[in-house]
Amino acid sequence: MNEAFRTLTLDLGARSYPIYIGPGLLGQAGLLRRHIPSRQVLIVSNKTVAPLYLDRVKACLEGLQVEECILPDGEQYKTLEVLNRIFDRLLGRRFDRGCCLIALGGGVIGDMTGFAAACYQRGVPFIQVPTTLLSQVDSSVGGKTGVNHPLGKNMIGAFYQPRCVLIDTDSLNTLDDRQLSAGLAEVIKYGLINDPGFFAWLEEHMDALRSRDVKALTHAIERSCADKAAIVASDEKEAGNRALLNLGHTFGHAIETGMGYGEWLHGEAVAVGICMAADLSRRMGWIRQDECDRIYALIHQAGLPSQPPTQISPQQFSELMAVDKKVMDGKLRLVLLKGIGHAVVTDQFDLPALNDTLGHSVA
Amino acid sequence: MNEAFRTLTLDLGARSYPIYIGPGLLGQAGLLRRHIPSRQVLIVSNKTVAPLYLDRVKACLEGLQVEECILPDGEQYKTLEVLNRIFDRLLGRRFDRGCCLIALGGGVIGDMTGFAAACYQRGVPFIQVPTTLLSQVDSSVGGKTGVNHPLGKNMIGAFYQPRCVLIDTDSLNTLDDRQLSAGLAEVIKYGLINDPGFFAWLEEHMDALRSRDVKALTHAIERSCADKAAIVASDEKEAGNRALLNLGHTFGHAIETGMGYGEWLHGEAVAVGICMAADLSRRMGWIRQDECDRIYALIHQAGLPSQPPTQISPQQFSELMAVDKKVMDGKLRLVLLKGIGHAVVTDQFDLPALNDTLGHSVA
Repeated sequence: MNEAFRTLTLDLGARSYPIYIGPGLLGQAGLLRRHIPSRQVLIVSNKTVAPLYLDRVKACLEGLQVEECILPDGEQYKTLEVLNRIFDRLLGRRFDRGCCLIALGGGVIGDMTGFAAACYQRGVPFIQVPTTLLSQVDSSVGGKTGVNHPLGKNMIGAFYQPRCVLIDTDSLNTLDDRQLSAGLAEVIKYGLINDPGFFAWLEEHMDALRSRDVKALTHAIERSCADKAAIVASDEKEAGNRALLNLGHTFGHAIETGMGYGEWLHGEAVAVGICMAADLSRRMGWIRQDECDRIYALIHQAGLPSQPPTQISPQQFSELMAVDKKVMDGKLRLVLLKGIGHAVVTDQFDLPALNDTLGHSVA
Repeated sequence: MNEAFRTLTLDLGARSYPIYIGPGLLGQAGLLRRHIPSRQVLIVSNKTVAPLYLDRVKACLEGLQVEECILPDGEQYKTLEVLNRIFDRLLGRRFDRGCCLIALGGGVIGDMTGFAAACYQRGVPFIQVPTTLLSQVDSSVGGKTGVNHPLGKNMIGAFYQPRCVLIDTDSLNTLDDRQLSAGLAEVIKYGLINDPGFFAWLEEHMDALRSRDVKALTHAIERSCADKAAIVASDEKEAGNRALLNLGHTFGHAIETGMGYGEWLHGEAVAVGICMAADLSRRMGWIRQDECDRIYALIHQAGLPSQPPTQISPQQFSELMAVDKKVMDGKLRLVLLKGIGHAVVTDQFDLPALNDTLGHSVA
């Protein structure tokens, strides 16, 4: 119960909040309760995570009015319709504006719970308790919340910050290998954006991470959260710099939407998206072949795919990418690489080169 | 085209915006266009208002990519499901984050369009063009947006401010008498909250307002917007004072929800709610019988009802009121009167007196 943990802070002035990282945190009632403002708490989770961790969280909340809302598991359920089940529960139990929501699960649960909190009675507090590597290193931090639309990923949502993020590294013990790899895609992303030292560290420690070495995983989570927190603090609502965090995501979202939500894991689609961004950057002469090779090698070492699905034609790819949130005045903007640890947001890319990348003729 | 108009400002720092009030403003392209940041515009309206004013607004937007989304008319369509039609249109037309939504219609259209703008790609600009008296004096100003849930009014939404509010007083010429009276309920509300001089003016000019005297209507709109803007500027997210604007609304929302959305007009329910708040205040000795009589008389003079529907039992009333957004820690808070022009938010009301008020034994 008193194991050591680390605390990072996402600095957003009055809306700053702590990110707790360590083993056994799900059992530390005090940590959770200090961020719960009143006696009404709704835990939102899914059918996979709830049997594993719901009781542990509930044990921390004794004496409060604790309700639960257990959703089906998968990206295909991240819809307005399923979101409404959270509102049904909140109103059915007469939860008032002082209530608090807890997101217990991966990125889908975190995104939906955060969006529900943003909208319920025009905004109530919520807490992120991410249980997958992907949500621990990326989606639980920074306040992006929302649901998908059949025509585009995360197209309906809000910027809405949690009161705290509580990352129990022990929860990775129950994560399957495919989900672990998916999370590593976002970890690799941080190295590529602006942290070349971290990228080199990952090349050294990828095997340790995949064999779930606690020390390596904790370091990777901490460094990822710190990298993300710094970028979000500088540009909360993505007026500029924050778009860098979308490295691999324009291609990745197109794959997820095109294949049908839930077919590919988000991290798998991002891994391919990172490779496509690297491939395009190389074709334009922005990075060298050997840098591109290092990126592909690390993605493979993480157990991730690098090739887009052949079912999506270049034409479809272009259409799917045209609804990306980074499009401005009809112009597509992409996150590309000028080196390992040097990502840029740009609309100055070479169209024939992009078509070659979309044509699957990757490095 | 160059008729005189008035400009009020809602002062919210960087998010401040103008409220334009005057005749013929729908024909003034320059006024509208200066608040549209890019070339993509979606006009959201309903089947009643669109045939009357859509072409006039479109004429102001020549050269831009203008799309429309025409929803059915009525409070019963203010749902998440109908909201999704706006997202369908935006994504179907590949509208990007720089696009702008225009709400052309009454309170339902304004609330839904504003909420769609708040959520689309996590936030795009929008403009309010209210065409009913109710939306001109109340719902278009202040940034409350949202949809209803079967268990409670306006329970899902966001605080999200428009870029401007454009009130063409000519649009009241096509409003039917029932809708005009509904709007007067919110006008009377401002007098009761903190503007006794305005209440007295309304007693003098109610007949002029109902016969659509332009000068009287313009004054009533301007004074209402100014009163509301001052309160919103002091408490945008309803941490305190802004709750005063809910005078009559806790009772009123219970009537709307209990009777089924669309049966009663919002303003009619608010009128009864104001009378119930006055009745309860009188029973508690907070206002005198003669003050209560003046309030009932003005409500009647405005062509509005003062008695709650007999179909809702006191028990049902209590249950419906228990999900009000002002409930805190399980405690109902009401806006009551300590005089004409002196409203207070309080949880210190007398429960037997409230039950008497709910029992329809009104003044």
